[in-house]
Amino acid sequence: MNKIYIISGPAGVGKSTTSKKLTEQFENSAYIEGDLINHMVIGGYVPPWESEKLLSLTWVNIADLSINFVQANKNVIIDYVAFPVEVEKFSQKIYTEVKDVEIIYVVLWVDGDELLRRDALRIKEHQMGVRCLELINEFESKGIDNRFVYNTTNLQPSELDKILLNIKENPAFKY
Amino acid sequence: MNKIYIISGPAGVGKSTTSKKLTEQFENSAYIEGDLINHMVIGGYVPPWESEKLLSLTWVNIADLSINFVQANKNVIIDYVAFPVEVEKFSQKIYTEVKDVEIIYVVLWVDGDELLRRDALRIKEHQMGVRCLELINEFESKGIDNRFVYNTTNLQPSELDKILLNIKENPAFKY
Repeated sequence: MNKIYIISGPAGVGKSTTSKKLTEQFENSAYIEGDLINHMVIGGYVPPWESEKLLSLTWVNIADLSINFVQANKNVIIDYVAFPVEVEKFSQKIYTEVKDVEIIYVVLWVDGDELLRRDALRIKEHQMGVRCLELINEFESKGIDNRFVYNTTNLQPSELDKILLNIKENPAFKY
Repeated sequence: MNKIYIISGPAGVGKSTTSKKLTEQFENSAYIEGDLINHMVIGGYVPPWESEKLLSLTWVNIADLSINFVQANKNVIIDYVAFPVEVEKFSQKIYTEVKDVEIIYVVLWVDGDELLRRDALRIKEHQMGVRCLELINEFESKGIDNRFVYNTTNLQPSELDKILLNIKENPAFKY
């Protein structure tokens, strides 16, 4: 059975690295970068956190791409800041239109102090500073079911394989 | 009425520059880069010219995105090597699922000698050499209706606005 992995979490927790590596582990797979879908809009662009309409459009686009990929027999990895409300709507659409698919929802997590420490290690242009913490707060305020949260604060980058295995095998992440 | 512009043509004729500028001219618009859709496939990736299945999948994805964008009241600009057969299938899907939309198909064209001259002006890593000419031959062999071909050989890059106006106003490009 093909799976759709939604790799979410605040900025800076390693969503992209984790998602890309995960995608590479499947013989048939597709990688959907939410930011990239969102930025297809040019004329009339508004950041997703300022326009519910645009955010919805992005999720409808992600869902349609996911459906096409699953129907072409591919595992799908979605790399995007996905809050519970969006995942719920997305899942309803997917389960209505596709049979034989499983959705996995993982909110990667790193504690604030560690997030700031890692951020400071990046090249200047990529540093986010305290803005890192804003999304942490937003996730916390939106009440994520704890079973989807994967705290990787104490894992080293060298332990990525362990993280990937857990994402694939841990039944807690099944949506 | 919203429009879907398919900006096609061999590599090196200026598809991306033209498409991006065109997208920016609308108040509400979305830019779909075909290569990027195609490269979402990671596991099991094959270049589109080696797999009809993957090429079809890419076009279905482009069509679904286009439909969503048009329904969200946006003009859509597609930047991709699009041959007549693909445009025909795409259009059938669009006109079946959306009312009140017009498809514009433009095959940007630059004569071989000029294409090679422009190619040589690029930085080394971006030069394609004689590979430029392969797609020219492929387009010619697939028998494009001449009215969709827009030969820009004698236009300077500074005349981009003229090109954009022609793409928008010339009734010959209506599909």
